[in-house]
Amino acid sequence: METVTQTSGAKPKVIIIGGGFGGLYAAKALANQAVEVILIDRTNHHLFQPLLYQVATAGLSPGDIAQPIRHILKDAQNISVVMAAVEGIDPVANVVQTAASEYQYDFLIVATGARHSYFGRDDWETFAPGLKSLSDALELRRRILGAFETAETAANAESLQAALTFVVVGAGPTGVEMAGAISELAKRTLVGDFRRIRTEHARIILLDAAPRVLPSFTPGLSKSAQKQLKQMEVEVRVGTKVLSVTGEGVQLENEFISARTVIWAAGNSASPLAKQLGGETDRQGRILVSQDLSVPGHPQIFAVGDITNFSYQTGQPLPGVAQVAMQMGAHAAQNILELAQGRPSKRFKYLNKGNMATIGRNKAVADLNFIRFGGFVAWLSWLSVHLVFLVGLRNRIQVFIQWIWAYFTYARGARLIYGPFRPAVPSKEPRSPSEEVSK
Amino acid sequence: METVTQTSGAKPKVIIIGGGFGGLYAAKALANQAVEVILIDRTNHHLFQPLLYQVATAGLSPGDIAQPIRHILKDAQNISVVMAAVEGIDPVANVVQTAASEYQYDFLIVATGARHSYFGRDDWETFAPGLKSLSDALELRRRILGAFETAETAANAESLQAALTFVVVGAGPTGVEMAGAISELAKRTLVGDFRRIRTEHARIILLDAAPRVLPSFTPGLSKSAQKQLKQMEVEVRVGTKVLSVTGEGVQLENEFISARTVIWAAGNSASPLAKQLGGETDRQGRILVSQDLSVPGHPQIFAVGDITNFSYQTGQPLPGVAQVAMQMGAHAAQNILELAQGRPSKRFKYLNKGNMATIGRNKAVADLNFIRFGGFVAWLSWLSVHLVFLVGLRNRIQVFIQWIWAYFTYARGARLIYGPFRPAVPSKEPRSPSEEVSK
Repeated sequence: METVTQTSGAKPKVIIIGGGFGGLYAAKALANQAVEVILIDRTNHHLFQPLLYQVATAGLSPGDIAQPIRHILKDAQNISVVMAAVEGIDPVANVVQTAASEYQYDFLIVATGARHSYFGRDDWETFAPGLKSLSDALELRRRILGAFETAETAANAESLQAALTFVVVGAGPTGVEMAGAISELAKRTLVGDFRRIRTEHARIILLDAAPRVLPSFTPGLSKSAQKQLKQMEVEVRVGTKVLSVTGEGVQLENEFISARTVIWAAGNSASPLAKQLGGETDRQGRILVSQDLSVPGHPQIFAVGDITNFSYQTGQPLPGVAQVAMQMGAHAAQNILELAQGRPSKRFKYLNKGNMATIGRNKAVADLNFIRFGGFVAWLSWLSVHLVFLVGLRNRIQVFIQWIWAYFTYARGARLIYGPFRPAVPSKEPRSPSEEVSK
Repeated sequence: METVTQTSGAKPKVIIIGGGFGGLYAAKALANQAVEVILIDRTNHHLFQPLLYQVATAGLSPGDIAQPIRHILKDAQNISVVMAAVEGIDPVANVVQTAASEYQYDFLIVATGARHSYFGRDDWETFAPGLKSLSDALELRRRILGAFETAETAANAESLQAALTFVVVGAGPTGVEMAGAISELAKRTLVGDFRRIRTEHARIILLDAAPRVLPSFTPGLSKSAQKQLKQMEVEVRVGTKVLSVTGEGVQLENEFISARTVIWAAGNSASPLAKQLGGETDRQGRILVSQDLSVPGHPQIFAVGDITNFSYQTGQPLPGVAQVAMQMGAHAAQNILELAQGRPSKRFKYLNKGNMATIGRNKAVADLNFIRFGGFVAWLSWLSVHLVFLVGLRNRIQVFIQWIWAYFTYARGARLIYGPFRPAVPSKEPRSPSEEVSK
């Protein structure tokens, strides 16, 4: 491994871009160490992404799963937090640019994650938004709750049916969680709130081109998940390719599904900053990092989390989950401290503590490496782990209470659509001929 | 009073426009009565407006003070809720129009409230937004929290000072609450979270053209409020006229205050639907209703809440507060039930149960008619009344916990700025010459 030694007497300057799991855990590892740190994020908060689907499905409020980054790092006197969008990185001059300023660094950690991707069909995004940010979650919430509102005033049976059809594309953890949560919303929470429609007649369809749901889990757990989804009346269609998505629905190989609400949980592509580092990237735009997580050719630059492809350990890229990003962030920070001391950096080794995915009330799957199980116990484990890792005691208390409340009442506390009034997807009424029509 | 009798055997059709306090209490009074009711609102939720300033100042989340209207009215089988924007009312044909449909009514209750007004200077709104809706609250939150972020990266002392100056125009209850809450945020909550700035140096200036704060309260309580504001280091300037508001600050008669954040709490104008009813309106666009709350010339149409001017009782219009709207809504509903039975409608009489305004932690004023007081007891009374009237047990629990938490920690749980990244007010950096510059 290459080393970079600090020549001047001043403390080395470290810049971290991104305040997600990777960036935050890097910052925590650098807190009150002999380095000067600037963490730059374009939002002011760290987002607990594993619970984002609950914001999208009206179970939680944005404030419950977000915490100001500068507040989390309040006691780290060597860390400044800057709210700004990074516009460029110059990996040779070692400069990070925002709209307002330029920041010089000795070491850089890039932790800007990934966005959903449409396999080159970006035009689908309008009709099938994904779920990465709070804005995404609120947009999905607007569409999902709005669909029932539209159904209530639908002019005919066709548009009613389309309004009550929800298609989730992609049966990874996010897709499974979304499908399960929409099913609960329709078949429990909203029952009786409407006069003309029966929300429990909603169809929730979960599609994936892969041959099973949760393909990153063992076949046994996939089977368990599929069974649990069926109990929740989610229609699971695996081995099913989506040919196109429009405002009217989803075209499959031999069927068109009319649906007003389509949710994209199928693909990711790395943050575009990856390209600016000059290193090699994979098909999803992820950086093929060195074994110490540095960017090849730039020993002073590290990349962590969803923006990376780290395949040394299993031959496959490590999955884009929170625990990978956390461990990578902490490791990159540790390597910087080593390099700053003139010592060599170390190889990263991921310690997989297990995987879980939740499906709904009392329903989940868990793989703790030594044991695998589904159902109620998996669900309780999922709840506990997520509560423990949620940042901020107050948020933990708030989320805990809301979960208890929801468990006993089926109610969802954040069932509000806000922002200026607009139908989630254009209305189908004959009086608005300029708008798109679902058939 | 005129009467309208139902000639056909069908139940009379009642339309309520607006799901605020007036509309909701009208709906509750009509629940499970011998009328068919449609409540139309352009949002899906009833908003507890008295706590909206806490959403704007990051104390509460939108979901904490909003409840789906159709959920509140779930058990009223004779009431349908429609989420739509009303585009017109024909008071002769008795038709309400939305983009998608037309609704015929026998009786109409208009409860669409008011917006803030700029006394004909609508161009000020961009620089000094008001606080009526959840969107307004989130925009104000974005600006207030964003101001501290901007200050942290300010290029010079001038822009730093402007970023840390907050001007609230209008010292009625909303203005006083906002000023107090921003003071707490700056001088307590945020202390220590920043590295370059000291948030406690923020200036909070509360302006009003009237000679005292809270002019709707007794002079003694105004004095008490002003003293409490001073303890919180809010600069109160009464008898001060605002000549203009720009992106750079506020022009007074003999001073210009450079301020990045200006908040408008100074004036209201009634919902534009008031004009469509054909009756006489006052300077603020409010309907001069008859004594039974009907619109003169249209005995089948009632108007309630902030959209009305009802001066019969005190010679002054009743204030635009929740309890007036609630009582009016219930009364209009009762009158409709009377008219539907062929009985005459009754005069409205407002029963003032008291007024309160909160200023900050342990600080408030209360006028319960038989007793007036300020300080801690007033503050506790304010908290209790607002908790009791907040709709939904779950919301009450959530808000209660957050208040307790905030009381002991000074933390504010909803300190997140969301939506796509953009500085709250254009940045002042020389690198963005196209943006407005504050000096």
